[in-house]
Amino acid sequence: MNGVDLLGAVAGFITTLTFLPQVIKTIKDKSVKDISLMMFVIAAVNEAMWILYGVLKNDWVIILTNAVILCLSLTMIYLKIAYTRKKANA
Amino acid sequence: MNGVDLLGAVAGFITTLTFLPQVIKTIKDKSVKDISLMMFVIAAVNEAMWILYGVLKNDWVIILTNAVILCLSLTMIYLKIAYTRKKANA
Repeated sequence: MNGVDLLGAVAGFITTLTFLPQVIKTIKDKSVKDISLMMFVIAAVNEAMWILYGVLKNDWVIILTNAVILCLSLTMIYLKIAYTRKKANA
Repeated sequence: MNGVDLLGAVAGFITTLTFLPQVIKTIKDKSVKDISLMMFVIAAVNEAMWILYGVLKNDWVIILTNAVILCLSLTMIYLKIAYTRKKANA
């Protein structure tokens, strides 16, 4: 693995974890008013497309990295809907 | 361009626009309390890495798509800091 490949691998790993600070903050604050549901719906659909692309290309790096981002996106969608309902019923 | 390449191109285009609904919502609502600053800082640093990777690989698709996401990430960082200060001074 040369320097450029290593940069790509590190960048890819960081991409996978981009949504993590938002998930942690949302679970801690239990507040989702300012969060765009549409953003995470688009992200989830998009990750599903990337996973299908990875399957068709038989590329496990694409499948696994996008599976992690899909999980984080679905978590944000769940939190957004759950806390919005909780607030509406409060 | 075959079906798999087309899927990759469409998925890549959607990835580029993932942060757009959040930027639009934040500009409309002028509220950033629930937004994770760290998420967009990580995203911005990560996009800079991807742009460098694109430059080293001489890959204009990687450079341009990540430049769009970098702009949207920097916009979110600016909005988060600006509206947090505005609220603190209100």
